[in-house]
Amino acid sequence: MTPPLELLSTHACFGGEQRFYRQDSVEIGLPMRLAVYLPPRALAGTPVPALLYLAGLTCTEETFPTKAGAQRLAAELGLALVAPDTSPRGADVPGEADAWDFGVGAGFYLDATQAPWKPHWRMESWLIAELLPLLAQQLPIDGQRLGLFGHSMGGHGALSLALRHPGRFQSLSAFAPICAPTRCPWGEKAFTGYLGADRATWSAHDATELMSAQASAPYPGGILIDQGLDDKFLAEQLHPHLFEAACETAGQPLTLRRHAGYDHGYYFVQSFIDDHLRHHARQLIG
Amino acid sequence: MTPPLELLSTHACFGGEQRFYRQDSVEIGLPMRLAVYLPPRALAGTPVPALLYLAGLTCTEETFPTKAGAQRLAAELGLALVAPDTSPRGADVPGEADAWDFGVGAGFYLDATQAPWKPHWRMESWLIAELLPLLAQQLPIDGQRLGLFGHSMGGHGALSLALRHPGRFQSLSAFAPICAPTRCPWGEKAFTGYLGADRATWSAHDATELMSAQASAPYPGGILIDQGLDDKFLAEQLHPHLFEAACETAGQPLTLRRHAGYDHGYYFVQSFIDDHLRHHARQLIG
Repeated sequence: MTPPLELLSTHACFGGEQRFYRQDSVEIGLPMRLAVYLPPRALAGTPVPALLYLAGLTCTEETFPTKAGAQRLAAELGLALVAPDTSPRGADVPGEADAWDFGVGAGFYLDATQAPWKPHWRMESWLIAELLPLLAQQLPIDGQRLGLFGHSMGGHGALSLALRHPGRFQSLSAFAPICAPTRCPWGEKAFTGYLGADRATWSAHDATELMSAQASAPYPGGILIDQGLDDKFLAEQLHPHLFEAACETAGQPLTLRRHAGYDHGYYFVQSFIDDHLRHHARQLIG
Repeated sequence: MTPPLELLSTHACFGGEQRFYRQDSVEIGLPMRLAVYLPPRALAGTPVPALLYLAGLTCTEETFPTKAGAQRLAAELGLALVAPDTSPRGADVPGEADAWDFGVGAGFYLDATQAPWKPHWRMESWLIAELLPLLAQQLPIDGQRLGLFGHSMGGHGALSLALRHPGRFQSLSAFAPICAPTRCPWGEKAFTGYLGADRATWSAHDATELMSAQASAPYPGGILIDQGLDDKFLAEQLHPHLFEAACETAGQPLTLRRHAGYDHGYYFVQSFIDDHLRHHARQLIG
């Protein structure tokens, strides 16, 4: 039996509740943390659609509920918001905290195949196989109406997991995502460490490669991506133009908005968060 | 000449800019930090009304811009938001960081009269005499249309400074303020340390005492206070009922909203921030 969600704390917020949970993950073999916002409608007993938000490098389950300003509109629209931590913690793998872009805080939302990461760095299996079913079982969340989004490394997570698990999510968006991890330093470092030096294994986790392989549009309702043009990581790490080209080839509708003056942080994310919630709500609620 | 604001960083946010400044304060004798949100209208060159937000114990100038979710509506209404740090830092007063409720991060928005705090702990003079004039000189801020609000210790700061400096602010509100610092442990500790053991000197910094001494309503447009009823500090530290009674005696219109289920943190603050911005906008903009 999957270990249940254990409530750590809850805070009234816009008539709903911002909760923090711990779960003793079987897939990861360690306790994991996550944040869940339940809107008033869910507290009243109606299962609601949920958005899974994947955060970026160095973030935790607290980053999104603290900084993104999403609860106000989620309360109004009747959306739950689920924000997991970004990696295992407490595994005591040698060197796990030596870098800010690899190891702790940098799980890249995949299952590692290489030692010493393989036993615990299993974010994909935790999220998809363990956590999502648990959310629908234990909380007033409708497991058939799920949206996926994320920021930076979590944007890579959102785009790649949505393409690796067709039918699991009904809507998709991202903020400043790493769009082609096989072709940027962050991705090359992470994939080498977690997946090994054989680049042939990498494509299955690269959003641009995955999109290029689609025979038809996997998200016919459209994908929304916001990108700041003063983002210091844009040129070297993010490559949204590559994902844009792949979407065009696949016939996948994409709204890629490039915003002059905006950087990579949460002042950018909060500026456009409402548009993302409405994008998901249109497809999950109608 | 007053040393100018020095820009440390700026982030596009809702069409405006979230900026962080440093100022070498003459009053405090140390560099101080503050956050300033400028709405699109201000960036276009029109001086806008500003709200000064005073944060609570342990907070910094980053707390409000990160956690309160105020920029969205401030952008729409055309309000600047100014959030200073909560105390001097770097004074190297012995013991200044030994407690979370006194010294660093706990300036209580007054000028200390007692050694060893007297030389640097001069938050009131910094804010009122040095910073506010500077904001109007250096930024597109209308120094004649200022609102004041704050949270917890900063709620005490807002209520007490607004009553100590009649005519300086045109609107006033608070989240879970320390309403009667002379009658709660936080206030007794801070006032003993900063003002000395003679309680006769304390009344001039106690919002309830100050309101009780008013011959007529100092804020005829009304004061707004929000208070959570699951706030763990409510019974021992905050005492809004005492300020409520003082307002009634003084004929001061007060909207004191008691919210079931809400605690003391920023999930509470963000839930009601829009109401506070609208409260101030009604009086500053009309």
